[in-house]
Amino acid sequence: MPQEFWQGTNLPKVGGFNRAVVLDAIRANGGVSRVELARRTGLTAQTMSNIVRALIADGLVVEDGHAPSNGGKRRVMLRVVPDAYSSVGLHLDPERITGVLLDLDGRVRLRSRRRVPAGASPEAVVGALARTFHHLVQRSGIDAGRVLGAGLAVPGPLDSTHRRLFKPPNLQGWPEVALADLLEERAGLPVVMDNDATAAAIGERWAGGADRAGSFVYVYIGSGVGIGVVLGDQVYRGISNNAGEVGHVQAAGAGKPCGCGRRGCLEAYCSMRAVVAEWVAGGGSADGPVSQAYQQICRAAADGDGTAAKILRTAASRLGQTLATVVSVLDVDRVVLGGPALRHAGTLIRERVSKVLKTQVWAPHVRPVRVQPALIGEDAGAVGAACLVLDHAYSPRLATLLGE
Amino acid sequence: MPQEFWQGTNLPKVGGFNRAVVLDAIRANGGVSRVELARRTGLTAQTMSNIVRALIADGLVVEDGHAPSNGGKRRVMLRVVPDAYSSVGLHLDPERITGVLLDLDGRVRLRSRRRVPAGASPEAVVGALARTFHHLVQRSGIDAGRVLGAGLAVPGPLDSTHRRLFKPPNLQGWPEVALADLLEERAGLPVVMDNDATAAAIGERWAGGADRAGSFVYVYIGSGVGIGVVLGDQVYRGISNNAGEVGHVQAAGAGKPCGCGRRGCLEAYCSMRAVVAEWVAGGGSADGPVSQAYQQICRAAADGDGTAAKILRTAASRLGQTLATVVSVLDVDRVVLGGPALRHAGTLIRERVSKVLKTQVWAPHVRPVRVQPALIGEDAGAVGAACLVLDHAYSPRLATLLGE
Repeated sequence: MPQEFWQGTNLPKVGGFNRAVVLDAIRANGGVSRVELARRTGLTAQTMSNIVRALIADGLVVEDGHAPSNGGKRRVMLRVVPDAYSSVGLHLDPERITGVLLDLDGRVRLRSRRRVPAGASPEAVVGALARTFHHLVQRSGIDAGRVLGAGLAVPGPLDSTHRRLFKPPNLQGWPEVALADLLEERAGLPVVMDNDATAAAIGERWAGGADRAGSFVYVYIGSGVGIGVVLGDQVYRGISNNAGEVGHVQAAGAGKPCGCGRRGCLEAYCSMRAVVAEWVAGGGSADGPVSQAYQQICRAAADGDGTAAKILRTAASRLGQTLATVVSVLDVDRVVLGGPALRHAGTLIRERVSKVLKTQVWAPHVRPVRVQPALIGEDAGAVGAACLVLDHAYSPRLATLLGE
Repeated sequence: MPQEFWQGTNLPKVGGFNRAVVLDAIRANGGVSRVELARRTGLTAQTMSNIVRALIADGLVVEDGHAPSNGGKRRVMLRVVPDAYSSVGLHLDPERITGVLLDLDGRVRLRSRRRVPAGASPEAVVGALARTFHHLVQRSGIDAGRVLGAGLAVPGPLDSTHRRLFKPPNLQGWPEVALADLLEERAGLPVVMDNDATAAAIGERWAGGADRAGSFVYVYIGSGVGIGVVLGDQVYRGISNNAGEVGHVQAAGAGKPCGCGRRGCLEAYCSMRAVVAEWVAGGGSADGPVSQAYQQICRAAADGDGTAAKILRTAASRLGQTLATVVSVLDVDRVVLGGPALRHAGTLIRERVSKVLKTQVWAPHVRPVRVQPALIGEDAGAVGAACLVLDHAYSPRLATLLGE
């Protein structure tokens, strides 16, 4: 029986947890008084006062002005100090590496992109990731001691420790690679890794405040298709840390060949690569890397090309059918669509997915489902990766600061 | 923003939670020492000692013998007092009502069955449920004050408050019915209600100890098809309390008509009713109510009838395909199959579902999936319903006893 099955709550743990809750509440509300914080967190005024004093002493939080008077004494407002600490997010996509430097407020301060040559070896990719990391830190001029670490978003599947990539079908020819450890050695700072859909979902959760509270599924559509699951404000990871790996479930009985070696997978119908392949199979022309060719198809659809529009709608319908099962089993009321595929045909895809969910999710009067565009655009993977570091559960440095 | 988003942990709440954790740990381990409890729960010896003293004073726990000596002082063992309190579980199935009386150990002390005539009105059904309840309590001879309440398992969907049934497709002609309140009035005790698959999953969780720890999905196959989701030892209910309602997701493009008025639903292929309909459509004869006819088909399959076996295998394959998506998104390693449909063709169905999951769940080396028979047999719904009451989060009386 796993130890946590019977885990009670002891006081030292409660202290660290409460500090993280308070910091997160100050951050997400962008200016809040101690009284308001106590009300929102359910903590006593005394506990709150102690936690806030420690956060101020550590330079994470600052008093900043007063709330408007409501008759009585005006309350002192608290804010997070945005540049007290930073984190770097790196997204490894089969076509390119995107890097961002985020402040403690979750804002992108710097951005960097680098192409990945087709068929690049794991060693070459680790080198490129490390260079992107060092480049961002150097350009920022930030003291290295103020960088909490690096987050790395990758196509799944991962091993259950989150340190190794497990023969990713979208990085063909790669064996099992200890990517997080290799990068950590080169970066000289802690590296946390997650699959791109989960990382992007964490980014939405951080960026979204009330709009991304509660439970939702985030669907990342790019080179692959994956889902990030947020339940009750928490990212849900599953027993092997591969929750949301739906790219290779069967979307049709005996269908199109997939990069994973099987047939009929969801990715073989809905990824950018699949849409381009379908277009080319129908006689369409497509130039350059997949993302560029996909963009051309989206433009054609927008310009009235019926074939292009039909290919995109069919892909969205297949996705919607799988999402109907996902939404029904998880009982969530929001589906967020994001990733590079949404950039140029977002409305068309959202409308079609929404239509399929309306007809296929049972009892829509009990649980209506909204389909929403992601708040974070094409940098979703990288921003999410940086948020992995800010997510206190993941960050050894932040955990230490928070007294855990 | 929901209040719980920022909820910290205050001490009074921790106390009640820890009492429930300790009681549950004593119950599930069936004889355990204070030292062992402290180790398992992570609570301090002092906290544990205080909690155990209170549980003994309330008559819920008793000291019972000593652990074998390991050289030092022999440790006093603690056990739950099984008949300190009881609960009644009622399962409403389109064909019949099953009632059980459970002790605090989760053991069935009494059982009662009652047929539901086809087309029975909500009023008639409430009357039959109340009679089953009173009959069980009277037969048991237990003081009414020692009955914690009644749990009611029903076909979904439920409204989000868990008090009303929402036009269940398997109870045709029923409007929205405030079933829990109506029964509470007649029973004179608190009634908690949940859908049958979730209730059955809770029953497995209670009965299973280490075998049902962690995360699993419980698939209930009977008049309908539903899933109960257990994640990290907790039943997952979703935002509208309808998590796992997969009976009406599309199993095939444009398929068989379903009781819900649409076509191609999973239930239209996998429920007992669907299997009987397929058999009859192929010229097979089937007598009596659905459960009886289904049993005849299972017997025919066991006796070598290829048509019967094929119908059952096809139904299991469709179920397996939907489960592949469910398992992939939730990342669980166990699927438990239960409910009346498993009673006579359990092995055939399990083998087929297992085969489909092996080929359709990605990266089986990262997360192998086991398909297991349910621990609780045909009374799964009723036993689960009684466990709803024992589940401290649900039971006002038990919550009071536990000091929440």
